[in-house]
Amino acid sequence: MINFTVGPVQSSEAVHEIGARDVPYFRTAEFSEVMLENERLMLKFSGAPEGARAVFITGSGTASMEAAVMNILTPEDRALVVNGGSFGARFCKICEIHGVPHDEIRLATGKALKTEDLSHAETQRRRDGQKQYTAFLVNKHETSTGVHYDMRLISEYCKEHGLLLMVDNISSFLCDDFSMAELGADVMITGAQKALACPPGVSIIILSPRALERVARNDPRCMYFDLKDALANQMRGQTPFTPAVGTLLQINARLKEIDSVGGVTVEVNRAKELAEYFRNRIKDLPLEIVSESLSNAVTPLHPTNGMSAYEIFLKLKDEHGIWVCPNGGELKNQVFRVGHMGNLSRDDYDKLVDALYKILG
Amino acid sequence: MINFTVGPVQSSEAVHEIGARDVPYFRTAEFSEVMLENERLMLKFSGAPEGARAVFITGSGTASMEAAVMNILTPEDRALVVNGGSFGARFCKICEIHGVPHDEIRLATGKALKTEDLSHAETQRRRDGQKQYTAFLVNKHETSTGVHYDMRLISEYCKEHGLLLMVDNISSFLCDDFSMAELGADVMITGAQKALACPPGVSIIILSPRALERVARNDPRCMYFDLKDALANQMRGQTPFTPAVGTLLQINARLKEIDSVGGVTVEVNRAKELAEYFRNRIKDLPLEIVSESLSNAVTPLHPTNGMSAYEIFLKLKDEHGIWVCPNGGELKNQVFRVGHMGNLSRDDYDKLVDALYKILG
Repeated sequence: MINFTVGPVQSSEAVHEIGARDVPYFRTAEFSEVMLENERLMLKFSGAPEGARAVFITGSGTASMEAAVMNILTPEDRALVVNGGSFGARFCKICEIHGVPHDEIRLATGKALKTEDLSHAETQRRRDGQKQYTAFLVNKHETSTGVHYDMRLISEYCKEHGLLLMVDNISSFLCDDFSMAELGADVMITGAQKALACPPGVSIIILSPRALERVARNDPRCMYFDLKDALANQMRGQTPFTPAVGTLLQINARLKEIDSVGGVTVEVNRAKELAEYFRNRIKDLPLEIVSESLSNAVTPLHPTNGMSAYEIFLKLKDEHGIWVCPNGGELKNQVFRVGHMGNLSRDDYDKLVDALYKILG
Repeated sequence: MINFTVGPVQSSEAVHEIGARDVPYFRTAEFSEVMLENERLMLKFSGAPEGARAVFITGSGTASMEAAVMNILTPEDRALVVNGGSFGARFCKICEIHGVPHDEIRLATGKALKTEDLSHAETQRRRDGQKQYTAFLVNKHETSTGVHYDMRLISEYCKEHGLLLMVDNISSFLCDDFSMAELGADVMITGAQKALACPPGVSIIILSPRALERVARNDPRCMYFDLKDALANQMRGQTPFTPAVGTLLQINARLKEIDSVGGVTVEVNRAKELAEYFRNRIKDLPLEIVSESLSNAVTPLHPTNGMSAYEIFLKLKDEHGIWVCPNGGELKNQVFRVGHMGNLSRDDYDKLVDALYKILG
């Protein structure tokens, strides 16, 4: 199978090799060193500000989204959340579960975030007599529909209004430019199984000094997601509970691989080049790109010849040995997605395009 | 390195082979089948009663301990918790965090649970005018000190008083006899990295019909640990969020391996035989077994020649290429543990005993 989904994706040889071995015991100085190096490289690759910290959560990206909200926001906050698809809706739901007052900016499928959306939310808030926003939550790349939001716009808005900026960068990390320090972001979340190209099971939270202060003074009612505990343990390269040791070693190998080939820029260019190659090659197919603002991570496609998107996913899987990423819910028959993350080459895309020509005629 | 810790442990070839490959896409009928088979085999191997269900949590054993408490108990309950070490203390802390009223039976290091301990708790409760217990929480094998509790005693007590019985069976599963149905247990928790001998990152919760009823009517304030959602998804072999797909495939391979060689009995006998072999071979060493009631999973040892247990752990690691399991906290210099889980042979134990003779000798 060739895997063009948005995760898990195809891994490098170094990652496979670690997977083939027994997982070592981890309450050791040796594993602590690996974890401290993981933190150092994650801070580097996320452009984290001076004094930032990283923690590694054994759990999905959603686990880290929820842990971040639980440890950083309280019922005293008021959050503004961009909701342009199922991951935006997830942030809203998490705020709701944890009693964090919030408003959402609802965007139609495929639509970019615009200045008017921000000013509209602000007008609405004033009209409703609600207190000022204290935090802004955004999925930088709304993976469900492949919409990549304008982070400069968001960053300026947050700076102007003094908002804490929490960024789910799960599927865009290493695929598109991003610097916490430049954007003034306070939280960045990512996962092992996107462009980090490791098996799923670990997610990562980077916290700015301002976010760390909030973590220090909050008391989330959850042992597993207690970031104070995670941060205290990570100081010595350890975790409060048995982590996914194997995956953390694979992340280490992959981070060093990225560092040795030239860092984030090289990775972003790689994704960009593959995305452009694929997008150029499908120009004559009855496929429409449904997003106004694309990430290099994913191309979201709608078949314009009446075929069901899910049917195309099934045919690619069962007849061509190729995985693309189906959508769920309302978009199931409308949209499928082609990823540009992980160990993929132009050759792989040629095979995908050939298969698409066969299916779509 | 030879790994005699209590997890991660050494894996079989089938598990390594899966680790060496790319992780497949998982929102497919193929992966659903794997997950349904995982559930079926886990129910079989835990001796689950008719109508029980299993869910797979991407997270450590603690994640599942906390998820179980959050979804099953409420402030209306009153739990009795056996606290004989750090994992018993963890159950108490989880109850405290989630506002579940509870009393603990404190046991000194290495001590077994006795009838008197149960009647003492009952007397105390009456004297304090507290309401009847509704639930009993126990780490069947208190892994931190290697004490294996008498489950018949606990089971009878729970049946007599009508208590819900929640069992952390993380380190004893597949090492000692256990049947949910026979004991009338309502919850069993285990993890991937103990006798299942897979990489860490996944834990498993088995729920009896009585536990399932409680899950259905409770509303935990956590998205990631919402077992209603996990159960609904597992009905079709899926999970609410991206799970540790690779580890779940490895668990599948391992469960089928266990099934094909004769099931739980064969596994338990294997652990038992290795534990006895090792315990017999160290009789002349200055090492004292510190537990009154042993599991086949672990032998907890105290050096009687004045040497530090942690020093022995370090010497074995650095000079002999052998990992045993150090203890933390107060027991750091007093106790180290030798595990009997995972892919280990008599030859491996011979090497360990030789090394111990050299160090203690």
